[in-house]
Amino acid sequence: MKLLRVGTAGSERPALLDADGTLRDLSGVVTDIDGDLLADEAALDRVRSAAGAGELPVLDGGGLRVGPPVGRIGKIVCIGLNYHDHARETGAEPPAEPVVFFKAPDTVVGPHDAVLVPRGSVKTDWEVELAVVIGRTARYLESAEEGLACVAGYAVAHDVSEREFQNERGGTWDKGKNCETFNPLGPWLVTADEVPDPQRLPLRLWVNGELRQDGTTAEQIFPVGEVVRYLSRFMVLRPGDVVNTGTPAGVAMGQPEPKPYLRAGDVVELEVAGLGRQRQELKSA
Amino acid sequence: MKLLRVGTAGSERPALLDADGTLRDLSGVVTDIDGDLLADEAALDRVRSAAGAGELPVLDGGGLRVGPPVGRIGKIVCIGLNYHDHARETGAEPPAEPVVFFKAPDTVVGPHDAVLVPRGSVKTDWEVELAVVIGRTARYLESAEEGLACVAGYAVAHDVSEREFQNERGGTWDKGKNCETFNPLGPWLVTADEVPDPQRLPLRLWVNGELRQDGTTAEQIFPVGEVVRYLSRFMVLRPGDVVNTGTPAGVAMGQPEPKPYLRAGDVVELEVAGLGRQRQELKSA
Repeated sequence: MKLLRVGTAGSERPALLDADGTLRDLSGVVTDIDGDLLADEAALDRVRSAAGAGELPVLDGGGLRVGPPVGRIGKIVCIGLNYHDHARETGAEPPAEPVVFFKAPDTVVGPHDAVLVPRGSVKTDWEVELAVVIGRTARYLESAEEGLACVAGYAVAHDVSEREFQNERGGTWDKGKNCETFNPLGPWLVTADEVPDPQRLPLRLWVNGELRQDGTTAEQIFPVGEVVRYLSRFMVLRPGDVVNTGTPAGVAMGQPEPKPYLRAGDVVELEVAGLGRQRQELKSA
Repeated sequence: MKLLRVGTAGSERPALLDADGTLRDLSGVVTDIDGDLLADEAALDRVRSAAGAGELPVLDGGGLRVGPPVGRIGKIVCIGLNYHDHARETGAEPPAEPVVFFKAPDTVVGPHDAVLVPRGSVKTDWEVELAVVIGRTARYLESAEEGLACVAGYAVAHDVSEREFQNERGGTWDKGKNCETFNPLGPWLVTADEVPDPQRLPLRLWVNGELRQDGTTAEQIFPVGEVVRYLSRFMVLRPGDVVNTGTPAGVAMGQPEPKPYLRAGDVVELEVAGLGRQRQELKSA
């Protein structure tokens, strides 16, 4: 299923994009798309049945904003340098263990909302990523198979990053990862049953129409199931948590000087095959 | 006011400790102690009036668990190496700018709940901290005075840390800061009007009765208002967010070998003057 949330920011209603591409209202069946729903097999089955039976009212999508596809996100755990090609372009050795950092849930915006270049920023950068949404509590897992079994679904994430804040201001990467609007998510949460192999997904990102990232999750150093297993040894992952699994090569930081960092007026488009497409205009904070 | 939340985990009810030390039920006046309440001056005034008029029902505290004093925390931003004496003991230079890392809100437990030593951990460490709870949105603030004006109140935080996960496993500190139960908070949220100078608060921590940390917030390199101002240039702080402002000297990592890291069965007690006292027993995860 392709689940999404539409409406004004903070008041989104749950919806479903059916197999014909028709937008359907889910608000008669579930209250929201969030960790409670994703952990509730019976509720997900009700959604699936209603969709299959053609019982869901059609929703007029014209003019409706698309919000992030998950509400009440508990935490966003991010994996750094998780693609062989991206590690090379940053000059870093491929990490021996996953590199972990955090984005706060309030950085999340919808897939077509504006992204704000922070005040004083000269190194705002893009990163297309495969986001994993957790549906089952992951705690001290033993295997990557157990890790994959905790995944409710997948979405496109834009892990917007300010490289000066991240790398040149002391401390951890978090300082350059948590600016306002820095995590566009969606448009859809595609349930895991419709993504048979998360390690074969092409990812692409364009800036002002120019292709900048053209990768595949096959290049991931630590695949999705292993990432979830690994994280579960250090923290509890809960339904409604999100894991951004890293970005392939092609970010601005990896380009020759003068590096083409983002400015107000730029337009970024990004997609992960099968998970939909985002488009953001950059604005000044 | 001393606000707190009592009851079983996840079902706490709001309460107040009055000037006589009597526990009073707030559930007839407010639904919870959270960002919505802290941003709502009128609601806080209602609480204050009801408390002053002696209208609040007495709550029998006997046997009642004390939970964290803030519900629905949005994010926890932490400042590292923020005490001159702690920077010295870790061998680090005092940072030129605040060092920032994150703890996920689901690491928060009550002040007397068990703390779990993670599986495989050999370097679980203690850190008594002054926690700041945000009551007004902080975004691109210009001054430390504006920063202080965004503070709703103060609490004791225990920033439990696993040093091997934090420093020896690659990537950022977050990996050693987000284990289950790693952020006891409370017992109280003391409103800012009752803490005239947050830079004159003694902090102490004992392990198995032995005094290990004995510091004062006067040693903070970046004081509370400056920390809030600084963070607001990199991220939005919102009502209900928490800032852990760093720990003074005396952590296990700073001791001579063999360093006395925490093990199951150890008991940690900690306090910040005027903000109450915590006591946790360490258990195995």
